[in-house]
Amino acid sequence: MSHSIDFHASQTAMNDQMVEIKPGATWTYTFHADYAGVWMYHCGTAPARWHIANGMFGMVIVEPRGGLPHVDQEFAFVQSEWYLGGQGQPASYAKANAAAPSPDFVVFNGVANQYKDNPIPVKAGSRIRIFVLNVGPNEMSSFHIVGTIFDTVTKEGVQLLKGNAGGWGSQAVDLSPAQAAIIELTIPEKGMYAFVTHAFNFVGKGAIGVLMGQ
Amino acid sequence: MSHSIDFHASQTAMNDQMVEIKPGATWTYTFHADYAGVWMYHCGTAPARWHIANGMFGMVIVEPRGGLPHVDQEFAFVQSEWYLGGQGQPASYAKANAAAPSPDFVVFNGVANQYKDNPIPVKAGSRIRIFVLNVGPNEMSSFHIVGTIFDTVTKEGVQLLKGNAGGWGSQAVDLSPAQAAIIELTIPEKGMYAFVTHAFNFVGKGAIGVLMGQ
Amino acid sequence: MSHSIDFHASQTAMNDQMVEIKPGATWTYTFHADYAGVWMYHCGTAPARWHIANGMFGMVIVEPRGGLPHVDQEFAFVQSEWYLGGQGQPASYAKANAAAPSPDFVVFNGVANQYKDNPIPVKAGSRIRIFVLNVGPNEMSSFHIVGTIFDTVTKEGVQLLKGNAGGWGSQAVDLSPAQAAIIELTIPEKGMYAFVTHAFNFVGKGAIGVLMGQ
Repeated sequence: MSHSIDFHASQTAMNDQMVEIKPGATWTYTFHADYAGVWMYHCGTAPARWHIANGMFGMVIVEPRGGLPHVDQEFAFVQSEWYLGGQGQPASYAKANAAAPSPDFVVFNGVANQYKDNPIPVKAGSRIRIFVLNVGPNEMSSFHIVGTIFDTVTKEGVQLLKGNAGGWGSQAVDLSPAQAAIIELTIPEKGMYAFVTHAFNFVGKGAIGVLMGQ
Repeated sequence: MSHSIDFHASQTAMNDQMVEIKPGATWTYTFHADYAGVWMYHCGTAPARWHIANGMFGMVIVEPRGGLPHVDQEFAFVQSEWYLGGQGQPASYAKANAAAPSPDFVVFNGVANQYKDNPIPVKAGSRIRIFVLNVGPNEMSSFHIVGTIFDTVTKEGVQLLKGNAGGWGSQAVDLSPAQAAIIELTIPEKGMYAFVTHAFNFVGKGAIGVLMGQ
Repeated sequence: MSHSIDFHASQTAMNDQMVEIKPGATWTYTFHADYAGVWMYHCGTAPARWHIANGMFGMVIVEPRGGLPHVDQEFAFVQSEWYLGGQGQPASYAKANAAAPSPDFVVFNGVANQYKDNPIPVKAGSRIRIFVLNVGPNEMSSFHIVGTIFDTVTKEGVQLLKGNAGGWGSQAVDLSPAQAAIIELTIPEKGMYAFVTHAFNFVGKGAIGVLMGQ
């Protein structure tokens, strides 16, 4: 079937750059990244939810002029939903289309529980930046990391918190489908820190990973 | 049956201005608009969700003292849900009441796909302001316009972005039921720009329109 | 069964302070409250959603250095969901686990309609501060008080509005599971003010209370 790309980081008419790409054809999508942000891209061919539900999405990071301040480690997590079709079949269009969504899995970077089964090593005391994007297609995220506090949060281009130690902190960032955030935190000590969406019905469906402080 | 009005732009006891209006009766609801914002109004007679689900809602815009800066065109979109009853019947109370909402249609300004079937003409290069209100009654919105970036966003009275060209931009605005925002953008060129809630399960249920750059 | 505590106000590895507490055992959870905020705590023993769905949660308020400005009255509301099991049984794990949540009750401070049945007296003209936390486990909140406007809002540590009378106001605060806010308002006159989540499907399930201006 045909596909296309919709880069949220770009400003272009749908019939200019987001055009149909037929099987075997090629297309060069040209745009100037005028705005900093953490942006979704996805196949935009109708019905887009079907293409998104089959995994045709990703994240584009556009840093502001001069870049972001130095941190020790950066990670990028894309939260998405799987609506399973039958064995060997693509995702279920009927399920992904349902108005009362019931994803079979809710995952970070495509695979349920992958960072729980294989925790991500981080250094105790180090400064961490996480780019997190919720591609849906249907459900919101409430991104949280157990045992840590976010002191710096930029959501949809808005710097909400600025690392004011001793000031206010944040426990969760709400992201509707197609929203993204940049969060920063310090790993307080050695040990285990689970990251989840705090919509806990989805934690048992794969939306959990672990940062392992070493 | 009786009805009433609940203006979110007002400050008044429910038993002062939001009183029952019996069929055939009249009532003048008096209030002073003390706060700028984009406000929902709706019938407040219990159960209010039934009245809202039957379309008894709207938007009130209170501009700040001195007004908003000049733009080329302004639009107002109210996102809402239809829970169909039988033929010739009002909206289904049972469906609208369900805790796992399954709206039959999710629409802008009352009618599914109306601005897809009849695109709204806008000028390429022009500056656009959109007042967007999510009246629900149940579901959140993730308002997005394909091919554009919001450089100015005021949500629930809070100016989140201020048109800092070359700075940060926003791809989607999250609105829980009864929340509203004012967004601004520039139409980059001639062509088609679809506006949706990026909760894509609802796009196929009518939550899509088109701005046509000319 | 075993339990544990996860204080969102703390920074600690899960295997440091959030450890398993066996029946009959005791544990002293020690932490330094480094960040101001309105924080959730909950049992963190897997599956945490089951423990949260059975009511093992609460709110911790950490005021900033020097405290919050004086108001006449303060209230704390925790919004949560009940997923009923059979008579005499704990909450239904199956229901709480469902990806399409259908809570039987959505409540403030544990009991459906309690503040509707027994309204909370407040003084007309007085200044009110409300700490509101949504513990879920699954659904978002759109906190609203009928007949009032929020002129001061701090959500997840971010002061969104600062009591600018005559400026912008807010009608609803969106809180995903594990998010909290501090809102302030003035009771405009004697009479009734209902507080709800404006996700109206939940109002009929118990998510309503009344402030009674006297």
